Amino acid sequence: MNQYDNNHIVIMAGGIGSRFWPMSDKQYPKQFIDVLGCGRTLIQLTMDRFKGICPIGNIWVVTQAEYADIVKEQLPEIPVDNILLEPCRRNTAPCIAYVSWKIKARNPKANIVVTPSDHIVMDVKEFQRVIKSAMKFTKSSDAIVTFGMKATRPETGYGYIEADLSMSCPSNNEIYRVDAFKEKPDLATAEKYIQKKNCLWNSGIFVWNVNTIVNAMRVYQPVLSKMFEKIFPYFFTDKEQDMVNELFPMCENISVDYAIMEKADEIYVFSASFGWSDLGTWGSLHENLQRDAHGNVCLGDNIKMYESRNCVVHTTQEKKVVVQGLDGYIVAEKNNTLLVCRLSEEQRIKEFSED
Amino acid sequence: MNQYDNNHIVIMAGGIGSRFWPMSDKQYPKQFIDVLGCGRTLIQLTMDRFKGICPIGNIWVVTQAEYADIVKEQLPEIPVDNILLEPCRRNTAPCIAYVSWKIKARNPKANIVVTPSDHIVMDVKEFQRVIKSAMKFTKSSDAIVTFGMKATRPETGYGYIEADLSMSCPSNNEIYRVDAFKEKPDLATAEKYIQKKNCLWNSGIFVWNVNTIVNAMRVYQPVLSKMFEKIFPYFFTDKEQDMVNELFPMCENISVDYAIMEKADEIYVFSASFGWSDLGTWGSLHENLQRDAHGNVCLGDNIKMYESRNCVVHTTQEKKVVVQGLDGYIVAEKNNTLLVCRLSEEQRIKEFSED
Repeated sequence: MNQYDNNHIVIMAGGIGSRFWPMSDKQYPKQFIDVLGCGRTLIQLTMDRFKGICPIGNIWVVTQAEYADIVKEQLPEIPVDNILLEPCRRNTAPCIAYVSWKIKARNPKANIVVTPSDHIVMDVKEFQRVIKSAMKFTKSSDAIVTFGMKATRPETGYGYIEADLSMSCPSNNEIYRVDAFKEKPDLATAEKYIQKKNCLWNSGIFVWNVNTIVNAMRVYQPVLSKMFEKIFPYFFTDKEQDMVNELFPMCENISVDYAIMEKADEIYVFSASFGWSDLGTWGSLHENLQRDAHGNVCLGDNIKMYESRNCVVHTTQEKKVVVQGLDGYIVAEKNNTLLVCRLSEEQRIKEFSED
Repeated sequence: MNQYDNNHIVIMAGGIGSRFWPMSDKQYPKQFIDVLGCGRTLIQLTMDRFKGICPIGNIWVVTQAEYADIVKEQLPEIPVDNILLEPCRRNTAPCIAYVSWKIKARNPKANIVVTPSDHIVMDVKEFQRVIKSAMKFTKSSDAIVTFGMKATRPETGYGYIEADLSMSCPSNNEIYRVDAFKEKPDLATAEKYIQKKNCLWNSGIFVWNVNTIVNAMRVYQPVLSKMFEKIFPYFFTDKEQDMVNELFPMCENISVDYAIMEKADEIYVFSASFGWSDLGTWGSLHENLQRDAHGNVCLGDNIKMYESRNCVVHTTQEKKVVVQGLDGYIVAEKNNTLLVCRLSEEQRIKEFSED
C-alpha cells in the first residue's frame, strides 16, 4: 500500500446550521444546501476539494441518522458503508471517536484529515498543497495538527489558536506548536488578537494518523474510548448500528477541542491561508460572496434590487423578488418561511426561528 | 312589480389591481382576494353589503372573460346569465354601456347602482341607508347621482367632486349639484381641496335609472351607444357573446367620468360618509385596517414582528414570517413572488412588477 491508499478523509456533517434559518433548518441543514448558488451544496464542495488526496473508498461521512438519505443522494460516489450514522447529537468528540475506531478497524496505518462539511475554501489549489504537506507530517509522527488561518479582521464568530511562532517544526516550516486555544472572543479581545501575529483562526480541520487520535482518546477520554472499544468487534457487521444506537447516546456531549486539544500537550498548528470561511452566519456569507456595486449579495434567479445596499438576499425558491430601500438587511425565504432582518441582529435568528 | 324588484346592482370587476402587486396580479386581481383577512374577498364583501337592496337575480357583474370562473366560484348565488364578459379592457364607459343596455332589455324600469368591486365600506348600515335614499331619488327623476365622500385628509390617490353646497335638492337634503370633477391632485392641491368644505372624494359609485344612463350615453357617446343598440336584439341569446366579442374591442377606451360626467350638465352628488376607501394602494390598506400598538398591519397566519413599526405585511401563503427592524415598509409574498418596499415608494410597484 502506498501513502495515497492510506489517506482518509472524514467529513463531519451532523450540524443543524440554526444561524442560517430559514435557508437552513433541522430538516435540511446548510451543509446540504447550495448556499453559494454554484450548483453544488457545501458538503459536495467539501468532498470536491479533496479530490486526488485519497481513494473515494477512504472518504467517510459522519452524520445524523435522519440525514442518511440526503448524504447518499448528494454524495452517491461514497460507499454506503462509509456513511456513519449517529443516533443523536453528541458534538465532535464522540463523532471523531466513532469514525477513528472504525477506520482503525479497516486500516491501522490510516492517515486522516477531519473536516467540517459546511465551510468554504476559495483557494482549493493552496488547500490541497497544505493538506498534503500536513499529511506528510502526520504520516511519520504522532502529532495532532490543527489548521490556523491567518486572521484578516477581528472576527468574533471564530475561536482562535495562539501559536508559538518563534520556531517551526524541523520537518515542516509552516507547522508550529500551539500555546493555547481561545474561545470566541468579544470584539475588544478579537482586536487585541489580530494585533498579535501569532493568533490564528481555528478552522476546525484536523490532521493526524489513526493511532495518534485513538491513543489521545484513550489517554484523555477513557470512558468514551471504552465505548468504541466495545463496539470495535462489530464494525462492518449487521450489529454495528444497533450497538452504536445503544451506546452512542451515553457518550458525553463534548467537542474535540475540549476533549483533546485543550488537554494534550503536543498540539501543532499549520499556519495557512486558503480563503477559508466557516460560513456560520449570514454576515459571513455576505463577506465571502461576490457583492455587486452596491454591496449586495443576491442568491436567486430573479432578484431585483432598488436603492438597496449591503444586503444579502437568498430566495432560491422564489420566481421573482423585488427589494427596495433596504440597507444592511438579510432577506431570506425558503419553504414558505420568510425572514427580513438587520444583518447586525443576526445573532438573534435562532431565537426568531424558535419563537 | 314593486320598487325592490326594479332595483339592480352592477358590480364592475374587470380591474387588474396592479398597485397591489404581488398580492394582486393579472391572474388574480385584488377584487378576488381576501385583502382584509376576514374570510371574504373584496368582491364578496361588495355583494354582501347590498344584501336586501334588490333580488339576487338583479345583481350583475361585468368582468374580463378570463375571470369568469373566479366570479362564478366566488359569487355562486349570482345567475350565470348575469355575469357579463368583456373580451378586452376598455375602461368603465363601455362596461357601463354594455350592462345598461342589457338591464334595459330585461327591465325598462330598472333603477341601478353601479359600484366598483374592490372598495371597502366600514359602516354598512349607513351605506345601505344612503344607497336606498339615492335610489329613491333616481327612481322618479332622471338624475345621475354620484357618491362624494367627506374628505378627511389631503389624499392624492382619489379624484374629487366639487359640490354646490349652497342648496340641496328639494326632495333629498343630502344630494347636491356637482360644480366640477377634479382629477387626482398633487399634495398642495389636495391640501387646498380639504380646506374647502365642498370638495368630496369621488367614490366611483353611481346611481341612476336605466333610461337616464342609456339616454345620457345616446347624447354624449353616440358611437358607443350604436354598438349596443346593434347588440341589443341578441341579448340573452346564443349569439350575444359573439356579438360582444366582435364589437366590444371597437369601443373607445374611456372612463364614464370622461364620457358622461364631465360632459353632462345635471349631475348630482350624494354627500356621504360610510367609512369608504378604494383600497387602491398598500398605503390605503395600512390606513384602513386595524393596526397593532406599533402601527403594523399584519395579514397572515404566523407573522412575528420585532422592532418594526408602520409596516404592512401581507403573506397569507407563508407558514412563518419574521420581520425585524423595519419602519414604514411593505412586505408581501404570494405565489413565490416577494416584495419588500418602502410604503413611501409604493407608486413604483407597478414598474417593479413589470421590470
